[in-house]
Amino acid sequence: MSDVAAAKPAKVLVSAAGLRALVSGIFAARGTSEAGAAAVAGALVWANLRGVDSHGVSRVPRYLELFDKGESVPGAVPTVRRPRSAIAIVDAHAAPGPVAMNRAADEAVACARECGIGWASVRGTVHTGAIGYYASRIAAAGMAAVGVVAGVPNMAYPGAKGAAVATSPLAVAVPAGRHELVLLDMATAVMALGRIAQLKAAGKELPPGVALTADGEPTTDPALAKVPVPVGGAKGAGMSLVFEMLASGLAANPIVPSYHAGTKEGRRHRQNGFLLAIDVAAFLPLDEFTATIDDTVDAIKSLPPAEGTSEILVPGERGRRTEASRCAAGIPLGAKVWRELAEVATALDVTVPTPLS
Amino acid sequence: MSDVAAAKPAKVLVSAAGLRALVSGIFAARGTSEAGAAAVAGALVWANLRGVDSHGVSRVPRYLELFDKGESVPGAVPTVRRPRSAIAIVDAHAAPGPVAMNRAADEAVACARECGIGWASVRGTVHTGAIGYYASRIAAAGMAAVGVVAGVPNMAYPGAKGAAVATSPLAVAVPAGRHELVLLDMATAVMALGRIAQLKAAGKELPPGVALTADGEPTTDPALAKVPVPVGGAKGAGMSLVFEMLASGLAANPIVPSYHAGTKEGRRHRQNGFLLAIDVAAFLPLDEFTATIDDTVDAIKSLPPAEGTSEILVPGERGRRTEASRCAAGIPLGAKVWRELAEVATALDVTVPTPLS
Repeated sequence: MSDVAAAKPAKVLVSAAGLRALVSGIFAARGTSEAGAAAVAGALVWANLRGVDSHGVSRVPRYLELFDKGESVPGAVPTVRRPRSAIAIVDAHAAPGPVAMNRAADEAVACARECGIGWASVRGTVHTGAIGYYASRIAAAGMAAVGVVAGVPNMAYPGAKGAAVATSPLAVAVPAGRHELVLLDMATAVMALGRIAQLKAAGKELPPGVALTADGEPTTDPALAKVPVPVGGAKGAGMSLVFEMLASGLAANPIVPSYHAGTKEGRRHRQNGFLLAIDVAAFLPLDEFTATIDDTVDAIKSLPPAEGTSEILVPGERGRRTEASRCAAGIPLGAKVWRELAEVATALDVTVPTPLS
Repeated sequence: MSDVAAAKPAKVLVSAAGLRALVSGIFAARGTSEAGAAAVAGALVWANLRGVDSHGVSRVPRYLELFDKGESVPGAVPTVRRPRSAIAIVDAHAAPGPVAMNRAADEAVACARECGIGWASVRGTVHTGAIGYYASRIAAAGMAAVGVVAGVPNMAYPGAKGAAVATSPLAVAVPAGRHELVLLDMATAVMALGRIAQLKAAGKELPPGVALTADGEPTTDPALAKVPVPVGGAKGAGMSLVFEMLASGLAANPIVPSYHAGTKEGRRHRQNGFLLAIDVAAFLPLDEFTATIDDTVDAIKSLPPAEGTSEILVPGERGRRTEASRCAAGIPLGAKVWRELAEVATALDVTVPTPLS
């Protein structure tokens, strides 16, 4: 093996189905129900398929660590209250994020089917993975969807030193007809934490305006970058703050105040969220709506391109192409991620799929 | 009068009540119902009180122009369908924005009272004014609120030349207890169009990253700035695009495709929107929720300040302070705005209030 190969080991290529079976097997072995384990595998592998590797199967060891510390409960079964016809409150009881969020998506769809729109709050879960996954599940029922997750502060806030609010993401899914689902899935930070971590791991300089040092100074040095910067300053920070108020406040499980109180409990990893489902067919015939969305996508993609642009993209389009390519060719995983997964699986007596290459 | 004073005429100070009576009188004289005229006056003067002068009474002549051109109908009475229990569709029939949006806020609150959440789509209105006004009206009913307005494209989109999408605003209102309402009210542009217009009128250089020339080149020259830039690039542009899809798509009144088709009808000024009301008391006792919001506000405001910061603000706090000061001292209006209003009022035989100074 040459030095270059040693410094940058080749990726391991694994099929989506193989990876799902592997992740399902690991969670089932730790005590998650078969359906719950499939939910986790579905959400994480979806993120890998879409190219959002920071929210994919690389998170598996972190879930297991949360199980070990008692901060997440592998076999927890979420309970649901439906205090009014259009709302549901899903108490996760510390179940892994995808178990609680899938349940919430189902509840939101059921509420929307009955009332035109449906809202499901999720209380007290851990790592939801990519929120766009749940929005796209709702869209598969012919509905539009909005989703938000709030977590432990890790992002800057104008005028404050250090981490103040979370990089809480927003997802909006809009079903189209001829076109693929329009899917916006964005952090409230300029650059998502996972992407910063990737650049840091690669020792690459960060673009300006993306991160601050621990002392609150702007930096492009990956070694000094500690706190991501909110998108648009007060706008991204304000969105994150009101997302926390809606996600955590309505779930009666506030994160920001207890975090800043500095107690051990307050700093513990946990997340709340909400999903809103909008039953398009209650407003107008679904095919009329999706034709409008198609026309809107066409109008944007047909605009005169700026110099140096070969194609104008709509939200979700790039991820969808990565998904098509990775469904066909397999998911490339870093050697370290793959080794960790294989070790965990072997220790739990779970079959490790043979990589495609 | 010195040259300096001539170059920058003093502001005219008018009481909020006097300004409301003036605007109400003008709209009533043009054929808007008394309640409708009061709705317009309430929305516009609220924006002035909050310091958002670009969305205040300076817009009155533009409404009258739209009446003259038949693009807005002063006496139009919105009609409401409520196809399912939690949703309403308010057809504005080209009524002025505040007439339709106030009706939508009432409908959203009524739906939410019954179902836990309520959604009202608004179809085919003009200038809504500041969307935060309607969110704050919903919050006055003890509810949280989300509001969006979509309009005619005027903002850049990554990779496209010229205006592609609108600077569609997002408002989120969260009721607090001891603290004032938390109210995020933001354009999806880096800088709101009204603020750019103010800097242009003053001949002041724009900050970098705010606007493009007609050819799509970044500029800080106020004379060349034509197209505002979306906040966070693909993030703000993506938000604007999905807001158009939800606001206009669900109202069966798409704006983006017909605008880019380039027809006269497609380029006509018009807006759609939606308001979501969330009945907090359906989730948990309202005072428990507002105590959580108070704690969250306290936590943010008590963070160690960054160097050069004397106070950390939460969304809506600056506007609330301006409101308190302008309620007490009056609203300062530019001489040109005041002269235009007084001329319009005199022509319509509407009494012009005596300025405070």
